[in-house]
Amino acid sequence: MKGNSMMKLGVSIRYLGYHMAAWRHPDVPADGSLQFKYYLATARKAEKACLDMIFFADGVGIRAADTPKGALSHDSKNAELEPLTLLAAIGAATSNIGLVATASTTYNEPFHIARKYASIDHISGGRAGWNVVTSWSQEEAWNFSKDEHLGYDERYERADEFVDVVKKLWDSWEEDAFIRDKQTGQFYDEAKLHIAHHKGKHFKVRGPLNCARTPQGRPIIVQAGANEGGRIIAAKSADVVYSAPFDIASAKEYYLDLKSRLAQYGRSKDQLLIMPGLTPYVGRTRQEAQDKYDQLQELIHPISGLSILYSAIGDLSGYDIDGPVPDLPQVNNSIGRSLIEIARRDNLTIRQLYKLRASGSRQLIGTAEDIVDDMEVWFKEGAADGFNLCPATLPGGLDDFVEFVLPELRRRGLFRSEYEATTLRGNLGLEKLTFGK
Amino acid sequence: MKGNSMMKLGVSIRYLGYHMAAWRHPDVPADGSLQFKYYLATARKAEKACLDMIFFADGVGIRAADTPKGALSHDSKNAELEPLTLLAAIGAATSNIGLVATASTTYNEPFHIARKYASIDHISGGRAGWNVVTSWSQEEAWNFSKDEHLGYDERYERADEFVDVVKKLWDSWEEDAFIRDKQTGQFYDEAKLHIAHHKGKHFKVRGPLNCARTPQGRPIIVQAGANEGGRIIAAKSADVVYSAPFDIASAKEYYLDLKSRLAQYGRSKDQLLIMPGLTPYVGRTRQEAQDKYDQLQELIHPISGLSILYSAIGDLSGYDIDGPVPDLPQVNNSIGRSLIEIARRDNLTIRQLYKLRASGSRQLIGTAEDIVDDMEVWFKEGAADGFNLCPATLPGGLDDFVEFVLPELRRRGLFRSEYEATTLRGNLGLEKLTFGK
Repeated sequence: MKGNSMMKLGVSIRYLGYHMAAWRHPDVPADGSLQFKYYLATARKAEKACLDMIFFADGVGIRAADTPKGALSHDSKNAELEPLTLLAAIGAATSNIGLVATASTTYNEPFHIARKYASIDHISGGRAGWNVVTSWSQEEAWNFSKDEHLGYDERYERADEFVDVVKKLWDSWEEDAFIRDKQTGQFYDEAKLHIAHHKGKHFKVRGPLNCARTPQGRPIIVQAGANEGGRIIAAKSADVVYSAPFDIASAKEYYLDLKSRLAQYGRSKDQLLIMPGLTPYVGRTRQEAQDKYDQLQELIHPISGLSILYSAIGDLSGYDIDGPVPDLPQVNNSIGRSLIEIARRDNLTIRQLYKLRASGSRQLIGTAEDIVDDMEVWFKEGAADGFNLCPATLPGGLDDFVEFVLPELRRRGLFRSEYEATTLRGNLGLEKLTFGK
Repeated sequence: MKGNSMMKLGVSIRYLGYHMAAWRHPDVPADGSLQFKYYLATARKAEKACLDMIFFADGVGIRAADTPKGALSHDSKNAELEPLTLLAAIGAATSNIGLVATASTTYNEPFHIARKYASIDHISGGRAGWNVVTSWSQEEAWNFSKDEHLGYDERYERADEFVDVVKKLWDSWEEDAFIRDKQTGQFYDEAKLHIAHHKGKHFKVRGPLNCARTPQGRPIIVQAGANEGGRIIAAKSADVVYSAPFDIASAKEYYLDLKSRLAQYGRSKDQLLIMPGLTPYVGRTRQEAQDKYDQLQELIHPISGLSILYSAIGDLSGYDIDGPVPDLPQVNNSIGRSLIEIARRDNLTIRQLYKLRASGSRQLIGTAEDIVDDMEVWFKEGAADGFNLCPATLPGGLDDFVEFVLPELRRRGLFRSEYEATTLRGNLGLEKLTFGK
């Protein structure tokens, strides 16, 4: 099913880890997401472990509403460094790790985005990647002079054209356009300059980009949307997809669907790598792993827990958190109804219900062998080309993975011991994009 | 007239130096403006010399038209790294030098700008500065889905509001807003969060910024416009002004005008530093300095020279470049007419005329003593609080300044030998901006 015998591994290093209570963990520096040295230490750890890339999710604003009142002030996700400046800074202080960050197509201009990622690709010697997203939250719209965020269709239509424009701008100059002949005074070869002259529904961009073609040809493009709009962009333009399936059946369906779409854009199946998200809790014993998980779950503040349930079920702050989930006939949305049904079927308390809903990515709790067994099946059976690790805490979650899981992956020949290349594209096994190809 | 006995010094390090033929100089690496290590080496040199800051001018696109045809391909200013990513990367690899870059208020959003500079201020431990500009070129408009660039009034009105919004966003959180109490689960103090709720003519921005108050309180604000709109923004909000006077009389007029405007915004005269641009050509003898200047002037390619004259006089490519400047009665703009009159009065050839027009900043050609004499008069007589160096070539122009001019400045007690602070604001002698002050 796949050409590569080794899997690819990225690690999401936003905030203080992907568990919502990570910041309360005794080993986590709660001010880390404002400290460059904190991110740099994690990036260097990932590089020492030969991971393919670090990854920053992003939102342009605090995306959550303060529901119930007071929930926001118990949340660590309010203040952080900006990912593109952070990526450039990390690029200056590392030499092999891939550098991927999210930028929204909804509130940006293609020229700025093309330029900044091109610049990071130059600064890092060919390690930049752009995770293409659209912005869906009301709170972000309010930061950009809009009363409402764009609807789904318009957002994805804009995103699709945005990516096209960025690619055109990255193709402004051929590799050898710059002659820089001091004797004749000729700086570039006019025949190797290509002006975009893009005119579309959402953008009119002349170009050229005022930056040379980058070490990777173009920075890599990452896409993370599982919906139809996201799949189209992924099939057309992405090098990597971060997916978020919770079980192998849906992962295989997604994998197969996406790979089979590539041909219609003249692309082969190995030109797009699919990397599902994964949060490992690893211990020397299963009990130790479970304890790590339980410890974090216990640290969820009740008001944060209630905020998880708020959008589906409404405000439960008037009820006993350790009492049963009330039957609320007024809840009529499908997620809310099914949560209430599960809770009442299994006699869950409110606290038990929010714990159940606390994770945003697939969790694996067990020994290194357990975790690698699972990863291997996904990798070999056509559900994944690799994984995007979302450690529950940082640095601890990554430390555990490196110490326990990586040796087992290597023992089975599933992951590299040294980098194959100095560029991200090279390490991912993707061809360098020569101009015009 | 001023409280500081020492002058402030910044250095502009965009491109390969500020002389248009810099890239053809034998000592200049012509591919430097795409090399991170080139910029980093210059920044470290500036830091070793204890200069206050490095500075990047910027445009969002290639701003020149290709006139006469072929001029652009003889120009080195076509491809460069993007200044904000570059600044962040340099910040990660230096520890004292101030980091200032230009960002346009015409084609950006205040939220992005507030966030990126705040992030660089955190990454660098308090060394970021934003040079506020408006974009005036047709070529940039075309890169941002506009047919025409904004007119002067609208551009400056937008810039003024833009700066206000950015300052409000930087004031989203008080210094001690983040409690991060692991025991209670309280992450921030709600009373210390301030949501901007900005509603103006050009922008509607709710906030808050998703980044904490920065090490400097706010990044410093730099302004470079000498026109009325620029002066208003400078008097209201800027910490530093980069001016471009060519003689001491106009420099004093500008200095006095700007300083006297501060009171109406409740600011004192030492809260705004005025730093005129300066391109030094220094030699051990005056002849050596003159030779350095002449060497560069000789390297101006004729088509580049003709491009300097194009907008004022039109296309002179049909004439003998070493023949007299023709009398062109059809030229009726004031700059063009005065150039033609000067040329005909002094019997200048076309080549001599474009050499006369080749420099964009005030040049000082001479020994270290000559140059320091001039700087000292400007500094002591109320024409400057310091200078923004625009070396003709890089790294050579900065090397010469450090080797020859700095020791003389120090001998006279006019410039520091070590940094007073670790933040830019501290080194500039400006107070840290405590919240609410």
